[in-house]
Amino acid sequence: MLNWNTLSDAERRDALARPVMKNSVTLKQTVSEILADVEHRGDEAVLDYTRRFDCPTLPALRLSVEQRDALAAQVSQDVEEAINTAFANIKAFHEAQMPQDIQLTTTPGVVCEQRFVALEAVGLYIPGGSAPLPSTALMLGVPAVVANVPRKVLCTPPGKDGLIAPEIAFVAKRCGIEEIYLCGGAQAIAAMALGTDSIAQVDKIFGPGNSFVTEAKQQVSQRADGAAIDMPAGPSEVLVLADGEANPAFVASDLLSQAEHGADSQAILVSNSESLIDAVKAEVDTQLAQLSRNAIAVAAMDNARYILTTSLNEAVAVSNAYAPEHLIVQTEDARGLLPVLKNAGSVFLGAWSPESAGDYASGTNHVLPTYGYAKNYSSLGLLDFMRRYTVQELSPQGLQNLGPAIMTLAAAEGLDAHEKAVALRMQALKDNQDG
Amino acid sequence: MLNWNTLSDAERRDALARPVMKNSVTLKQTVSEILADVEHRGDEAVLDYTRRFDCPTLPALRLSVEQRDALAAQVSQDVEEAINTAFANIKAFHEAQMPQDIQLTTTPGVVCEQRFVALEAVGLYIPGGSAPLPSTALMLGVPAVVANVPRKVLCTPPGKDGLIAPEIAFVAKRCGIEEIYLCGGAQAIAAMALGTDSIAQVDKIFGPGNSFVTEAKQQVSQRADGAAIDMPAGPSEVLVLADGEANPAFVASDLLSQAEHGADSQAILVSNSESLIDAVKAEVDTQLAQLSRNAIAVAAMDNARYILTTSLNEAVAVSNAYAPEHLIVQTEDARGLLPVLKNAGSVFLGAWSPESAGDYASGTNHVLPTYGYAKNYSSLGLLDFMRRYTVQELSPQGLQNLGPAIMTLAAAEGLDAHEKAVALRMQALKDNQDG
Repeated sequence: MLNWNTLSDAERRDALARPVMKNSVTLKQTVSEILADVEHRGDEAVLDYTRRFDCPTLPALRLSVEQRDALAAQVSQDVEEAINTAFANIKAFHEAQMPQDIQLTTTPGVVCEQRFVALEAVGLYIPGGSAPLPSTALMLGVPAVVANVPRKVLCTPPGKDGLIAPEIAFVAKRCGIEEIYLCGGAQAIAAMALGTDSIAQVDKIFGPGNSFVTEAKQQVSQRADGAAIDMPAGPSEVLVLADGEANPAFVASDLLSQAEHGADSQAILVSNSESLIDAVKAEVDTQLAQLSRNAIAVAAMDNARYILTTSLNEAVAVSNAYAPEHLIVQTEDARGLLPVLKNAGSVFLGAWSPESAGDYASGTNHVLPTYGYAKNYSSLGLLDFMRRYTVQELSPQGLQNLGPAIMTLAAAEGLDAHEKAVALRMQALKDNQDG
Repeated sequence: MLNWNTLSDAERRDALARPVMKNSVTLKQTVSEILADVEHRGDEAVLDYTRRFDCPTLPALRLSVEQRDALAAQVSQDVEEAINTAFANIKAFHEAQMPQDIQLTTTPGVVCEQRFVALEAVGLYIPGGSAPLPSTALMLGVPAVVANVPRKVLCTPPGKDGLIAPEIAFVAKRCGIEEIYLCGGAQAIAAMALGTDSIAQVDKIFGPGNSFVTEAKQQVSQRADGAAIDMPAGPSEVLVLADGEANPAFVASDLLSQAEHGADSQAILVSNSESLIDAVKAEVDTQLAQLSRNAIAVAAMDNARYILTTSLNEAVAVSNAYAPEHLIVQTEDARGLLPVLKNAGSVFLGAWSPESAGDYASGTNHVLPTYGYAKNYSSLGLLDFMRRYTVQELSPQGLQNLGPAIMTLAAAEGLDAHEKAVALRMQALKDNQDG
């Protein structure tokens, strides 16, 4: 347990430090070679990597709509219902985010507009691994549906059988995603960003992944011929802010929800109650023993931090400084703290709002800024699947009203042609009036 | 003149190709060294670079508020009025962009919220050079004011006299910017992103600059301890879409407005009228001769492209494929084309809407995605100075309603602790009801 009040500034920084996440030169080089290979050999390169890493006998990259639907039909009734519940909530919450175009007359005769339009083509990356991740498919697919993105591409590594999890297929079907490619890793990101014969380029790539995927997303986002990406990535993390009234078992379960994600997950408890911290620690030990992903969770909890503060205000300050991806507030008046809580990806208020709710089904998106990025990046939302642009239209009267100011500013910046573009139009209007 | 209809696919790609913009290894290395130097030596490094490149006798980095105000007082009456006009329009248009927080009950007892909050600290970079750029200061400063960003930092290289242009000082005063630092280049970006003793870190950096500034922004945006940036950069560009009814002098003046920005500026005319193209070319020659920045404009116009299409529809398709930063539409029914025009940073409709209007004073922002980024990035707007995050709160009833779906999905993904976080809360509610 760290007593915040007795820590030096340096110790405080250490207490809130994230694990160093430095992609090795080797990783950068490997990913850069995969990108170059996909750029030059296209589908053949993607197939080679996929056969080597995922499915040696894969006949082709594309999963047909018939295969998708056959897989989707295998989903059990209760999982189907759970996915439908989550789908409905995520859809409703993202529909509520639909922005309004604006139109404003700033000066008589000068109309300015801001318009929102869906991106043309998005790439959704769903990691493979030991268990299927239908929740990630929902969090990426549903906003794309709501935004009305015309082209939705889903890439996910196939299993040894050359197929994908039925749950992913079911979500893809629910989202109307017909372009599904059986590939993962840096090669999948390269294919979506740079294009191959069978996978046309997308405008933006979304989704989590391992270090190869993350590095590949970073590299393609730096190329003008690449693609935009959703946000920078880092290990997942939770900060629980709790007072003496919190239920230690609930708090422990939220810390462990984070811990079971990966050995590099960060779990932090900040409380003004020493007895609560002690009770949570005991609960963590009890609950840890029961988890199937015990080894991962134990490793992550080795790095867990328990921070004791002298007041709730100080606890809030610690949370604001850390800027957690998930912020769980289990205090007597959780909502009352909302105005002073800054810098979090998503905030979970009160005893009955576990992180799992937002991870799966409440309606909020679970793709969130981590690693301190909550200070300057947004949680994933509908707007990330759209683009804003502006329009302006001046009437002759509008140009006459605004022209002198434009010409003065252009002259102040020494830009003659800008000035002349207005001057000769003003002259034409004058000639018309005189004539 | 290129006849679109007779071009092969490869020739069409060439016709719309941007100049290759590959930062040299030397540039990357130099910038990376400047970043490391500022990281280690802080203010001293920034001062050294600034004395070497900008003002040998500079006593300190900070421009005091008194100096700012004394400089601002030197602005002529007509420039002051023009800036005030532009300020009012930009402010009104960005105020109209203010987003609404949302709150939605997705399932009875499950409340989801999306909240918008201003970034805490932004860095605004205003390039130096031959002429002052008060318009850029307005385009960055006004949205920061409207968003209500608590801390606004402005960096701009000082002149030989250790001061900045009165116009920039005037805009800074109008925007209430008190933190002004006399530095430019990669060292200014490094200082704002990484922090020094006198310049505290900012969360996000905005603004254009030379290749050192652009490369430095790119590098700091890739560091977890760095800063977010507004958007990727490229040379400025315009595409004018005109039919036979367009005024050749107006079209030529818009192409030249772009050309005078820099020798690498792109100016493209697409028209279904050969006689219009011929007339514009003649006008370009006439107007070019009269420009003070003639050498720059001549160099840029050497790369100008005149594309003849067989129809207006085809001209629209060419524009959509190019995805111009500025799209000027001078056709009989310009507004009628709006629904089919995609991929532009800002659209200027009709004969009386020159690019200069948006560059200076109509109210729209002139920081726009260029180099084809209009396909996947937004025009700068109020939202870029804010952050979105979500909040959720479940009542006991809400957890009981949604709990089963959450547990089913967590089980499907093999995440026990996520399931247990719900299960033990459901059990506690049951115990309460039973007890």
